[in-house]
Amino acid sequence: MIRVSIDNELSYNVQQPSDFVFNIQAAKNQYQLIIEETLAFDPPLPFEEFTDPLLENRFVRIRANPGPLKVSYRATVGLNYMVGDPAVIQESPIAMLPMETIPFIFPSRYCQSDLLMRMAQLEFGGLAPGYSRVEAVCRWIREHIQYQIGSSNPNTSAADVIVHRAGVCRDFAHLAIAFCRALNIPARFIASYANFPDPPPDFHAMFEAFLGGRWYLFDPTELAPRNQVTRIGTGRDATDVAFATIFGTAQMTHMSPNVKILEDNVGDVAVAIVTS
Amino acid sequence: MIRVSIDNELSYNVQQPSDFVFNIQAAKNQYQLIIEETLAFDPPLPFEEFTDPLLENRFVRIRANPGPLKVSYRATVGLNYMVGDPAVIQESPIAMLPMETIPFIFPSRYCQSDLLMRMAQLEFGGLAPGYSRVEAVCRWIREHIQYQIGSSNPNTSAADVIVHRAGVCRDFAHLAIAFCRALNIPARFIASYANFPDPPPDFHAMFEAFLGGRWYLFDPTELAPRNQVTRIGTGRDATDVAFATIFGTAQMTHMSPNVKILEDNVGDVAVAIVTS
Amino acid sequence: MIRVSIDNELSYNVQQPSDFVFNIQAAKNQYQLIIEETLAFDPPLPFEEFTDPLLENRFVRIRANPGPLKVSYRATVGLNYMVGDPAVIQESPIAMLPMETIPFIFPSRYCQSDLLMRMAQLEFGGLAPGYSRVEAVCRWIREHIQYQIGSSNPNTSAADVIVHRAGVCRDFAHLAIAFCRALNIPARFIASYANFPDPPPDFHAMFEAFLGGRWYLFDPTELAPRNQVTRIGTGRDATDVAFATIFGTAQMTHMSPNVKILEDNVGDVAVAIVTS
Amino acid sequence: MIRVSIDNELSYNVQQPSDFVFNIQAAKNQYQLIIEETLAFDPPLPFEEFTDPLLENRFVRIRANPGPLKVSYRATVGLNYMVGDPAVIQESPIAMLPMETIPFIFPSRYCQSDLLMRMAQLEFGGLAPGYSRVEAVCRWIREHIQYQIGSSNPNTSAADVIVHRAGVCRDFAHLAIAFCRALNIPARFIASYANFPDPPPDFHAMFEAFLGGRWYLFDPTELAPRNQVTRIGTGRDATDVAFATIFGTAQMTHMSPNVKILEDNVGDVAVAIVTS
Repeated sequence: MIRVSIDNELSYNVQQPSDFVFNIQAAKNQYQLIIEETLAFDPPLPFEEFTDPLLENRFVRIRANPGPLKVSYRATVGLNYMVGDPAVIQESPIAMLPMETIPFIFPSRYCQSDLLMRMAQLEFGGLAPGYSRVEAVCRWIREHIQYQIGSSNPNTSAADVIVHRAGVCRDFAHLAIAFCRALNIPARFIASYANFPDPPPDFHAMFEAFLGGRWYLFDPTELAPRNQVTRIGTGRDATDVAFATIFGTAQMTHMSPNVKILEDNVGDVAVAIVTS
Repeated sequence: MIRVSIDNELSYNVQQPSDFVFNIQAAKNQYQLIIEETLAFDPPLPFEEFTDPLLENRFVRIRANPGPLKVSYRATVGLNYMVGDPAVIQESPIAMLPMETIPFIFPSRYCQSDLLMRMAQLEFGGLAPGYSRVEAVCRWIREHIQYQIGSSNPNTSAADVIVHRAGVCRDFAHLAIAFCRALNIPARFIASYANFPDPPPDFHAMFEAFLGGRWYLFDPTELAPRNQVTRIGTGRDATDVAFATIFGTAQMTHMSPNVKILEDNVGDVAVAIVTS
Repeated sequence: MIRVSIDNELSYNVQQPSDFVFNIQAAKNQYQLIIEETLAFDPPLPFEEFTDPLLENRFVRIRANPGPLKVSYRATVGLNYMVGDPAVIQESPIAMLPMETIPFIFPSRYCQSDLLMRMAQLEFGGLAPGYSRVEAVCRWIREHIQYQIGSSNPNTSAADVIVHRAGVCRDFAHLAIAFCRALNIPARFIASYANFPDPPPDFHAMFEAFLGGRWYLFDPTELAPRNQVTRIGTGRDATDVAFATIFGTAQMTHMSPNVKILEDNVGDVAVAIVTS
Repeated sequence: MIRVSIDNELSYNVQQPSDFVFNIQAAKNQYQLIIEETLAFDPPLPFEEFTDPLLENRFVRIRANPGPLKVSYRATVGLNYMVGDPAVIQESPIAMLPMETIPFIFPSRYCQSDLLMRMAQLEFGGLAPGYSRVEAVCRWIREHIQYQIGSSNPNTSAADVIVHRAGVCRDFAHLAIAFCRALNIPARFIASYANFPDPPPDFHAMFEAFLGGRWYLFDPTELAPRNQVTRIGTGRDATDVAFATIFGTAQMTHMSPNVKILEDNVGDVAVAIVTS
């Protein structure tokens, strides 16, 4: 069991009455136990909660008046991922894919697998199928794309990254997802709280690939131990799991999604991490 | 009540064992009654059916061996759309949107509302909100984009269409959806069987916008009477409702999605058509 | 006659030995008399001068060592544009175009007239040919594209601007050029020193269209009186007339291309300005 | 000496009075001797000739009336390329580049070296500079891009090819040029008549890189012996050297740019070919 403490504060300067949809709460699922959590708005505001029935993303909607707005989320989460042996994890034949995984083979806004079909075949089509092929995708990205903060923007897509050869965790995940889908491996985007040794605290993007009947977690950036990561949301790509979607006029003035590992009797492990 | 007869035949030449996911059956919902239907494969094949719990899309999956493959779908459908008065249909404030409509405000593969945000504001931001604003979007598209068969391809997106200024029904729908989303109006893609007076029989793409608490049907091409249209599928864009997704190697050799109006005691109507 | 004083200072912080190609000197041509000018480098450096035989652009090449580098260009220039009557200026039939203007009908890096062919025809194809059609192009751009500092970057092209609907003088010129070329009107990019009443001092981008056997100057931004503008360079697009091209590692730390009108007995004029 | 016979016939169906600019005549330069040539139009038409003073491209302009149009170009050309030793050919330092080669470092319509800067550095930045680095660029392209007729269109650019991973000779040349320019090696596009053993007769695209004070010929497709190639035109990219630019309405109905080697006492050679 790994116990994680999350302390996330977001501050905004609201100019006009604005609607916010937040997706900052840790997801509740069998591998991730919410031990305690609080969500608070300053000034205090009524809020509406909604959990996506399929993807388990937890959304909160508020309406804020002009002035400063502070959102605080604090939680203690117990992580208990199941693990598997990479060597024996196969790709699922199309005929065996659960129908609800099929949409995750389709291209999405930032993961244009349709455009990258030939490249995926040329680079990875000859590799043995299975967990190791997804690992090869991750390795290719680490070796061919520069991780560079500020090199991309919210409009940047996988096809852009292939040209510009630089990006951040979000771009790495988008590109990996696009390659997997082009190889007929369902893949989806994960927004998370991660414990970075180094960079400033930030949300972290990773991805899952569907192999051998389960979703497995991958991180092409290798910036954080995968089994210490707390999932916030799951989607086709970043568009589905923005931590805040603002309808109105407001600027973010501060963000500090801090993560502390309270207890870890597992260690970083070179195993496949089952996430659902 | 409008009664429609559908007779759709798709032929393929399969080179290697291939998996197909078809989405060609009429959707079942309160406005669309399946009076009778048959789905047949030649050679006969076992198939697996799946209905998307949220969007009601009906998928069929088969595995075909090399050789010719013929898929026949025949149905009689009763259409009974509810109508509304365009003059009184308002846009829904964000705070009033059901949470399950929120994903339809987000950009998708072919509807990059994020890129078209400023254009949507400049062209339509000053118009009175409501049903008439979505009509203005449709009118703009008819006036600024050439409908031209062969002018686009499966990779063509709304942003491409804004540059190239030509497209088919699918492109018209994608662009309309992108504009609506950029205006914070949830919008989604509809694949359908339509009764064209003129062009060769084909699937038809339209879109729905969420206004005043309901989804309303729009067709920027104005090629077919909207109340004679039989819905096949609903999605974020064309990617979700391809009539056939092929995993393997197969060429389509023939397609004839014929539609006949058996009975129509309604006529084409200049009203808002509620579709869910 | 209009007399203009230019005082342009560029400062760099050079990290490694770097080559610079500058294009900051006023062009010499029959409408533009260099009354006096000085070009100085601090620290002093030997430099090599080159004037493009066709386009009359004046390039200076230096090699700078690590450390600060300051470039100062001061000039007094007499401008004496010939003017024409917009009402009588015709477009040139292709058969009458001097062969050396033909390359300026072709697409270039930032002016993809090939992609905008249909849009140009739809928007401007029905207008009467002549000077007024180029004015219509300029007007369309002012009305449909937001002038917004910071909204574009050096990679931004005319096709991007059509999607994003915002840009600066450089983007306005690129788009106008692309439209003109798509209408078979040769058009080229002008880098200049302009006298802005308002915005901070900066280089200014404009464009020329070839009409009735001559090049005429246009400014879709309408930010500066066209007859007070001092031409620096002429090219297919911004790529040909960058004020500085750096081969190596250096950051610009300061830029102040100041312009003063010393004498103007002409005034801003609503006439066609012949520029070559 | 290599003697080549060229027999090129182009047929058009002209719908409306149209202007054509052809660039189909062999260039005249010190390595390429026009022994004899004829250019004929059927129906006979007056034509205007123009040779670009810098690039030596030979343009012919005609005005054709509605009806069929046939253009025939026949020539015997003597090729006598100078050769060099790849092992000793260096890249030219920026400070040593003749100023007239500088524009060939800039990005152009189909060679967006600005977008591919980081990729060029990552893939080729660590290689020893010189002739062999340009060879490495060619090899990379052969190994990573599929040569596939029909996979690209006239709008396809180097950045598109990096995503789609397929193209024809024109695309291979564009990508090679973009990479070279991103490495500060001037590079330009060559349109030519080539002697293909295999594919149907066609124009051939290659490129030149400026190394050690001279232009050297490269062919990333390796489809034709480089020393048997007859140059037609030289430009920034395909846009400058289209074999026909049509202003009006006309369809090409036939094209057969045949090439025969009359005499070759040289053989295909693994040497650097100096072309100017």
